[in-house]
Amino acid sequence: MSKYIDGAYSTLKEYVPGEQPKDKKYIKLNTNESPYPPSPAVISAVDSAEVSDLRLYSDPESSKVKKAIAEVYGVEDKNVFVSNGSDEILNFAFMVYGKINGAVFPEITYGFYKVFCDLYGIEKTMIPLEEDFTIDKNKFINTGKFTVIANPNAPTGIELGLDVIEEIIKSNKDNVVLIDEAYVDFGGTSCYELTKKYDNLIVCRTFSKSYSLAGARLGYCFANEELIKDLEKIKYSTNPYNINRLTQIAGTAAMNENSYYMANCKKICDTRKFVTKALREIGFEVLDSKANFIFAKHESISGMDIYTLLRENGILVRHFTDEKIKDYNRITIGSEEEMKTFVDTMKKIVKGA
Amino acid sequence: MSKYIDGAYSTLKEYVPGEQPKDKKYIKLNTNESPYPPSPAVISAVDSAEVSDLRLYSDPESSKVKKAIAEVYGVEDKNVFVSNGSDEILNFAFMVYGKINGAVFPEITYGFYKVFCDLYGIEKTMIPLEEDFTIDKNKFINTGKFTVIANPNAPTGIELGLDVIEEIIKSNKDNVVLIDEAYVDFGGTSCYELTKKYDNLIVCRTFSKSYSLAGARLGYCFANEELIKDLEKIKYSTNPYNINRLTQIAGTAAMNENSYYMANCKKICDTRKFVTKALREIGFEVLDSKANFIFAKHESISGMDIYTLLRENGILVRHFTDEKIKDYNRITIGSEEEMKTFVDTMKKIVKGA
Repeated sequence: MSKYIDGAYSTLKEYVPGEQPKDKKYIKLNTNESPYPPSPAVISAVDSAEVSDLRLYSDPESSKVKKAIAEVYGVEDKNVFVSNGSDEILNFAFMVYGKINGAVFPEITYGFYKVFCDLYGIEKTMIPLEEDFTIDKNKFINTGKFTVIANPNAPTGIELGLDVIEEIIKSNKDNVVLIDEAYVDFGGTSCYELTKKYDNLIVCRTFSKSYSLAGARLGYCFANEELIKDLEKIKYSTNPYNINRLTQIAGTAAMNENSYYMANCKKICDTRKFVTKALREIGFEVLDSKANFIFAKHESISGMDIYTLLRENGILVRHFTDEKIKDYNRITIGSEEEMKTFVDTMKKIVKGA
Repeated sequence: MSKYIDGAYSTLKEYVPGEQPKDKKYIKLNTNESPYPPSPAVISAVDSAEVSDLRLYSDPESSKVKKAIAEVYGVEDKNVFVSNGSDEILNFAFMVYGKINGAVFPEITYGFYKVFCDLYGIEKTMIPLEEDFTIDKNKFINTGKFTVIANPNAPTGIELGLDVIEEIIKSNKDNVVLIDEAYVDFGGTSCYELTKKYDNLIVCRTFSKSYSLAGARLGYCFANEELIKDLEKIKYSTNPYNINRLTQIAGTAAMNENSYYMANCKKICDTRKFVTKALREIGFEVLDSKANFIFAKHESISGMDIYTLLRENGILVRHFTDEKIKDYNRITIGSEEEMKTFVDTMKKIVKGA
């Protein structure tokens, strides 16, 4: 840090993304990417895109992507906002809704929420999870604060039911409730339809997981028109052309081929079932996941050891050093083949321990 | 705006980007894009990019782009920061350096600077330009504030000399000085080498103009390692994967073919010379521009009328309603052919007025 930086940021601890090692080829089960490529239509749309058009600015309104999303989800264009990855939506939302009354979210959840609080000087309330890693809904009723819940939660993969989510939204009418549905397509139930009923709800999504476009950087959210206008205002006050041309093309094509992606999500759910069962058979506790990852701890081998041993065997998973979850690893569900290799490797590790 | 938005943002007036009309084909001279396509290497790099890799996150460090930039400009990788368009660099810089002592910049300049001030509650000092639209350097000596100068300035195109810039940097050692060189490649003199000498200097650049990549969204800047670390910290606290894969590929290829772009810039300077002369011959005052645009006012036809008449003739230029510059239009230098059409149209308009 320089001596010139504003003191407000001097103690800020930035988010640490999952490692992207360049030293050798790994089976990458550490950043929740999809094992499946983008759909044929995306590949052909990007391949046939006029690269020479890159000399021109992208559409600041991202109209085509918005329209494609709105059509698939049966909402109006004006109820959709798109961004340079869903982190940008979270960023804007924390910025404009967080400081008023503070923000509340689970203690164990997407690690970025607390970074945004520290960035903007937002008073944060982090509610501990229950012993079994579930969220106690009562602690999110009538919070009086900007309320943020990842559903399914990360890194646990555990989901709150739609009725509970609605209760939380309804009880927090004076504050915005943001439901981060990054992982909802893997067997979860979305609450996006509730944006038609409640004007305090933002439902945040991403093309990074279920739409196989992590590298294109595209997030979206659903909300009441007024909330969308808030986000647009901040976009136009920070980065009007936030989404580049090729990503707009890729995102539009992806959304127009939605069924391809939902079929992939189904495959991932099937693979998750097989992996969960296999791990449980060799002494793992595996939380019930509705996401494209599982969160697992072994009865006798430490989380750190599992992480290290897997890495030595060419498999990357994500280990968090936080005291409360250090016994666990978050394991992305890769392709069936990758996960067979993973299970076989895990069996060998358990046997050798 | 929603009733939920933080009061701090309720009076915020966002930036208004140049219009991108969809109703018909225009000669677009309104957003300072390059009339020339990206280089052959960029086109082939993007065309041959593995679209299937979009399922994987992009490199959060953008190492290859940084390396390419560092090599061309003879600096070290650690002295380069890259961003989702140069607006992102400006955003981060205003955020972390602006609030301490306030910010100072010319009254007539890139309209986004004041938006950032309003966004972050930064006290702004806007120094009027001289009668001839030049910047009086004395007003930027020892400002005691975060000092921002677009050089060449926009929308005037007028440049401050390197010696003057150095004087300003040297006199403001207790504050960061940001020189926005978005337009420097069109005949201006860059001060980026001074980042090796002064630890309070950020030199901001973009691939949008001289590198024909407005639609790819890629900005970069040079600075002392500590200032770069400040910007990285904010990146990792807002959007770690800020640059998508295809843009990283395009940017790297573009930088590696630097001479193609510098030749285009030369062509644009030649065209600018021809247009400037032609306009002066039909009653225009045209400021001396070192940018890929000119700023011009007619002796008898109003700025708004010229804008409207050109638009009716299928040509878009940028008109600002600000009282002090409302007689002028900012005209991007397009291809030679486009500018011949522009000059012919302008001649007809002047004749008919």
